Amino acid sequence: MQNGETIRLKTKDLLGLEYLSDSEIQLILDTAIPFKNLFTRSVKKVPTLRGKTVVLLFYEPSTRTRTSFELAAKRLNADTLNITASASSVVKGESLIDTGKTLEAMKIDFVVMRHGMSGASHLLAKTINASVINAGDGGHEHPTQGLLDMFTIRDKFGKLKGLKVALVGDILHSRVARSNIWGLNKMGAKVYVVGPSTLIPSHIEKLGVTVCHDLKEIIGELDVINILRIQRERTAECLFPSLHEYYKIFGVTEDTLKKANKSLLIMHPGPMNRGIEISSAVADSKRSVITEQVTNGIAVRMSVLYLLGGGK
Amino acid sequence: MQNGETIRLKTKDLLGLEYLSDSEIQLILDTAIPFKNLFTRSVKKVPTLRGKTVVLLFYEPSTRTRTSFELAAKRLNADTLNITASASSVVKGESLIDTGKTLEAMKIDFVVMRHGMSGASHLLAKTINASVINAGDGGHEHPTQGLLDMFTIRDKFGKLKGLKVALVGDILHSRVARSNIWGLNKMGAKVYVVGPSTLIPSHIEKLGVTVCHDLKEIIGELDVINILRIQRERTAECLFPSLHEYYKIFGVTEDTLKKANKSLLIMHPGPMNRGIEISSAVADSKRSVITEQVTNGIAVRMSVLYLLGGGK
Amino acid sequence: MQNGETIRLKTKDLLGLEYLSDSEIQLILDTAIPFKNLFTRSVKKVPTLRGKTVVLLFYEPSTRTRTSFELAAKRLNADTLNITASASSVVKGESLIDTGKTLEAMKIDFVVMRHGMSGASHLLAKTINASVINAGDGGHEHPTQGLLDMFTIRDKFGKLKGLKVALVGDILHSRVARSNIWGLNKMGAKVYVVGPSTLIPSHIEKLGVTVCHDLKEIIGELDVINILRIQRERTAECLFPSLHEYYKIFGVTEDTLKKANKSLLIMHPGPMNRGIEISSAVADSKRSVITEQVTNGIAVRMSVLYLLGGGK
Repeated sequence: MQNGETIRLKTKDLLGLEYLSDSEIQLILDTAIPFKNLFTRSVKKVPTLRGKTVVLLFYEPSTRTRTSFELAAKRLNADTLNITASASSVVKGESLIDTGKTLEAMKIDFVVMRHGMSGASHLLAKTINASVINAGDGGHEHPTQGLLDMFTIRDKFGKLKGLKVALVGDILHSRVARSNIWGLNKMGAKVYVVGPSTLIPSHIEKLGVTVCHDLKEIIGELDVINILRIQRERTAECLFPSLHEYYKIFGVTEDTLKKANKSLLIMHPGPMNRGIEISSAVADSKRSVITEQVTNGIAVRMSVLYLLGGGK
Repeated sequence: MQNGETIRLKTKDLLGLEYLSDSEIQLILDTAIPFKNLFTRSVKKVPTLRGKTVVLLFYEPSTRTRTSFELAAKRLNADTLNITASASSVVKGESLIDTGKTLEAMKIDFVVMRHGMSGASHLLAKTINASVINAGDGGHEHPTQGLLDMFTIRDKFGKLKGLKVALVGDILHSRVARSNIWGLNKMGAKVYVVGPSTLIPSHIEKLGVTVCHDLKEIIGELDVINILRIQRERTAECLFPSLHEYYKIFGVTEDTLKKANKSLLIMHPGPMNRGIEISSAVADSKRSVITEQVTNGIAVRMSVLYLLGGGK
Repeated sequence: MQNGETIRLKTKDLLGLEYLSDSEIQLILDTAIPFKNLFTRSVKKVPTLRGKTVVLLFYEPSTRTRTSFELAAKRLNADTLNITASASSVVKGESLIDTGKTLEAMKIDFVVMRHGMSGASHLLAKTINASVINAGDGGHEHPTQGLLDMFTIRDKFGKLKGLKVALVGDILHSRVARSNIWGLNKMGAKVYVVGPSTLIPSHIEKLGVTVCHDLKEIIGELDVINILRIQRERTAECLFPSLHEYYKIFGVTEDTLKKANKSLLIMHPGPMNRGIEISSAVADSKRSVITEQVTNGIAVRMSVLYLLGGGK
């Protein structure tokens, strides 16, 4: 893109923000800008990845993430191939390594994988020469979500350094939280995690975050609140008494935001549970950049596909 | 297409034939003709919608309609994206409005939606700037089916005005019937509805149709019989005693057609239940234009996609 | 490809290797070579089938075969359309013939079909003008698997004539075995079938194969072992006592191969059950060409699509 030279990330894979440097993160965010600008044109496509194949290998359903990657690939003119667990060889009991070898033998260029097991994408990345992009592995990382969140914040504030960002909700199970923590820390933001103690892992301070159990205590200092999705199933695990109770104490409402800065941004990776972790008034307020996150997600994923290039 | 000028429908959406004027219907049917001619060529594609994205959002399964739209979009060189309810965020409980906002943020151009709830496509159309095409909403409308039925009739008779068309079967639950009634009335055809009284809504005469309970009584006057699909599940609702009984009284057989005009056309939106609403002899007779309806369906859908253009 | 002339197979369909001559098989294998070479390029696409549509009609799930055909079609620049049984009209009880007529009316060019019923692809081929490719019909044939197996063997030995090939495992239920037997016999190879007597059909010698119940007896003579997948469900049918027992007696391990030729090839159509029909050491040994089979599968399927041309 610059001077005809092809810029690349050093690694063939994107497995987590833990493994990227600040300058690599910055490169991805910078490269996403022209891709986002593309969306204002009538023909929203560039021929960058013509003749390349992107496999979307989803062991867990996720319309939002799968769709975003599929559009990113198509807007780069790549061919896409959907493989979902229920219809896949997995049903026949094939191991992830054999699935990887099979995909490799098909001479595909990228595998975007979601898997319920932490570390699954590392295993796949070691097995194949194609580029592996982790689209969520268990409770570990979801790096492109972290990147699109940072892109959105930087787009609004012009910087990440020095900003104060709170991640609110189920930190314990959230790969989104983990990727945000790694990324934001590297880019010089200060990260708070807020939620009931049952949903915050012990010793999380070691990742360089400040733990808080009452959002109102710190609301006045914050630049961004990133509200995580509450899985309704968690109540069965007795991690909090009821969804109603959760909303009363940790749901982000207009009341929560009374003492917030004017410039405070509200983010959510979606899909939202209105009336559980967020009120409709907040979700639809001027502070909310939730739909912009979706737009930025495609641009950031185009950037990642472009910079990885499709393997060794 | 004409003189380099882009012709468009006035609305960004196609929600139902109730909302189109006769001249708009005529424009759609006329524009479908060159698209149908395209199918005789070796390369059945035109670059009209290159760089545009058509999302196929199906909350109810329908291979026939989904496939027809997907082919229509691909023959216009658009990118397509399949989202089905079982794999979608819907499972995670997201509202239709939030799904719409998310799609909008993805900068897609068209949403083709099937939904079990009447009016769902109106709701979506209000939420987003992209063009919404109703591919069936509950028992309300299925406008492209109505359009392809009219295209097929006009193709055979050279006109719609003055023709006598009977819709036979389950009028009560049929969005196909509703779209045919609105469309045919606007184009000057006379519409009869025929079926057991349990399957004909009371006061349907107000839509401008003539109710009849015995097809043989009017068969001699008719130009077209459009036979609707009987949902096998309806017997459980006690709307008719049994499938066998239904076939004996309302199934269209060669016996039913004894006094029919030579030029009478047999239509069916498919998939057919042979031996329930239609006999195999009738389905495969020379009068039958059932497979031509399928071909015309793609042409009409290309016309609609072209004329809507992909939103504001 | 040669001298600008279009070479074609005589038939519009590929239903089984039983129906091909040796020279037709050779033509398919020869034509696959340049397609395989294409995979080493950065842009792995040719415009051969631009504007053509390939429907992937799968009544049984199969990621491996579906994916291979989908990539083959895309690398020829065809449009692809996935139809799976669970989402299809089949659910609504439409007959295969009506499904065929509907696809035909959609002006598609190829149908790649997998179906649980032997002969299903013959029925479809008679119904439509488009090219039908059998991607597995019950226990009957899976011709492209037979072709890719032969391509792989020929690629290694430079010939098929005179080679000794053993098919090991569940011969009774295997369409892969049947297609290999027809094909290899026609090309002049000698075929052995090896397995427990409960999994070998009686009178199979009439197809021109030699039956054997102990692989070690013939191992020294063999050039190729093609190990078939054991369906775990078969134990329930009491066809063999247990998976463990099967592995002990018929599983191919390093011990089985003690007296094998240095040049012996190990093949498997995948997905493998490691520790049931094959040991991991054998699967990952230098003899194994299992991943190459996957690569060759796409090339062979491109060759078949190219040579069939898309119907009458």
